[in-house]
Amino acid sequence: MFYFIGLGLGDAKDITVKGLEIVKKSKRVYLEAYTSILTVGKEKLEEFYGREVILADRDMVETQSDEMFEGSDTEDVSFLVVGDPFGATTHTDLVLRAKEKDLEYRVIHNASIMNAVGCCGLQLYNFGETISIVFWTDTWKPDSFYDKIKRNRDLGMHTLCLLDIKVKEQSIENLMKGKKIFEPPRYMSVNTAAEQLVEIIQRKKEEGEKDLAFTEDTICIGLARIGSETQTIIAATFTDMMTVDIGAPLHSFVIPGELHPLEKDMLKLFAYNDDVKQY
Amino acid sequence: MFYFIGLGLGDAKDITVKGLEIVKKSKRVYLEAYTSILTVGKEKLEEFYGREVILADRDMVETQSDEMFEGSDTEDVSFLVVGDPFGATTHTDLVLRAKEKDLEYRVIHNASIMNAVGCCGLQLYNFGETISIVFWTDTWKPDSFYDKIKRNRDLGMHTLCLLDIKVKEQSIENLMKGKKIFEPPRYMSVNTAAEQLVEIIQRKKEEGEKDLAFTEDTICIGLARIGSETQTIIAATFTDMMTVDIGAPLHSFVIPGELHPLEKDMLKLFAYNDDVKQY
Repeated sequence: MFYFIGLGLGDAKDITVKGLEIVKKSKRVYLEAYTSILTVGKEKLEEFYGREVILADRDMVETQSDEMFEGSDTEDVSFLVVGDPFGATTHTDLVLRAKEKDLEYRVIHNASIMNAVGCCGLQLYNFGETISIVFWTDTWKPDSFYDKIKRNRDLGMHTLCLLDIKVKEQSIENLMKGKKIFEPPRYMSVNTAAEQLVEIIQRKKEEGEKDLAFTEDTICIGLARIGSETQTIIAATFTDMMTVDIGAPLHSFVIPGELHPLEKDMLKLFAYNDDVKQY
Repeated sequence: MFYFIGLGLGDAKDITVKGLEIVKKSKRVYLEAYTSILTVGKEKLEEFYGREVILADRDMVETQSDEMFEGSDTEDVSFLVVGDPFGATTHTDLVLRAKEKDLEYRVIHNASIMNAVGCCGLQLYNFGETISIVFWTDTWKPDSFYDKIKRNRDLGMHTLCLLDIKVKEQSIENLMKGKKIFEPPRYMSVNTAAEQLVEIIQRKKEEGEKDLAFTEDTICIGLARIGSETQTIIAATFTDMMTVDIGAPLHSFVIPGELHPLEKDMLKLFAYNDDVKQY
């Protein structure tokens, strides 16, 4: 059996009891290591599981799945995914390749940021489409997600923004030289997300657009390390969100739509300052 | 500390390792027993945890929270919730009451149907607003959720439909007589959900409405016991969904919007018949 096992969001102990039992009896254990991270690394997981964990980068998952599947028709192989295997990142592609080879698979679900975001007090069923915000470069500043935020806000719905992760990226120089030297990983902070979003509305304003999705004074929510002991949630204006310090990655970002009174009361628990408390 | 602990969706072993450790050291352990169920009951949980579990019905959670909180300023008390504590059912109300009393709380997240539904192959970020479908009676047939399905479909988005659960309900007769006799629990099946939805579009058709959200031939998805060993997923037309047998509760229901090629390929894995395979 080929198992997709969600690890949840915090540390090694956020795996389920069922997931842990399967890991312990698997012949090989892979860890998907390019779309998300826990607050602990591979070594801590190996120590907790009492066995070797093989890091699976994008290249391995996308082009060497045969190697990963090997032997899973007669023995157990585990593929570990931070969060849930069908959460923010989905591994349907790998499922389809397994089925093509007539391999059985099973999924051990876990918390994902897609549902754990409910801890900020906003109701999950009031969220509209989820968006991803990518790192801008000097020459590439995509803003197509703005229209989705606008649409959600117009419908009174909240928007979960997943923030970019760059792992095993090469500099253009090294890429051109064909050197397999990788840049240090980068994880987008809520500061960068707020900055990029404010830059978009400033541009829209300059272009004369009147009905903006939000302003610098709109309350938004920054979340860090959800599910871990050091989890931090803060509700602040976009202006304040550009400079707040909520610590190490991973960060996520929420732009609320219409707020139910209970949702407002919850947000006040995470208020950055009196602007939010009087909200 | 007052802990909100998600149990996930399958059986006793879907709790996280961290959650289990907290349950074992808690002074009292409550199980929220009115918004969802696992495939196993309280007794199996007690056996697995090696300790007593107190069933908390709606009345206890909504009116006797002081009793539940008692002692949690100096000791640990656990409140277990099927799925995630902030998933399909949210317990923000209880969080706010704890904070009013200056009690600390912590959340141990887990899978919820709100993210585990991704196992049917539809991408979570393409889901629009989640809706709830309630049991109709002879005289009460609410259909306000239809407009939300329509809106999601018009935007090309999928709709997760949470299906009604009736636990500890009194018959009108017993209610009027003041007798605390409760009806057996009822869990809506995908058959009933499909029937009610088809009745709505038939009514709309009779009223001359042309631009319907879906027809009897639209493909929809029925899910049963997600996360358990007997998990069943089926993709079929609304007509077929009225009669398919996917077994015991809990069921959930999905109405897809626009489908990405990968999503189509995944749905074919769960095809009820050739209508869906050729989809």
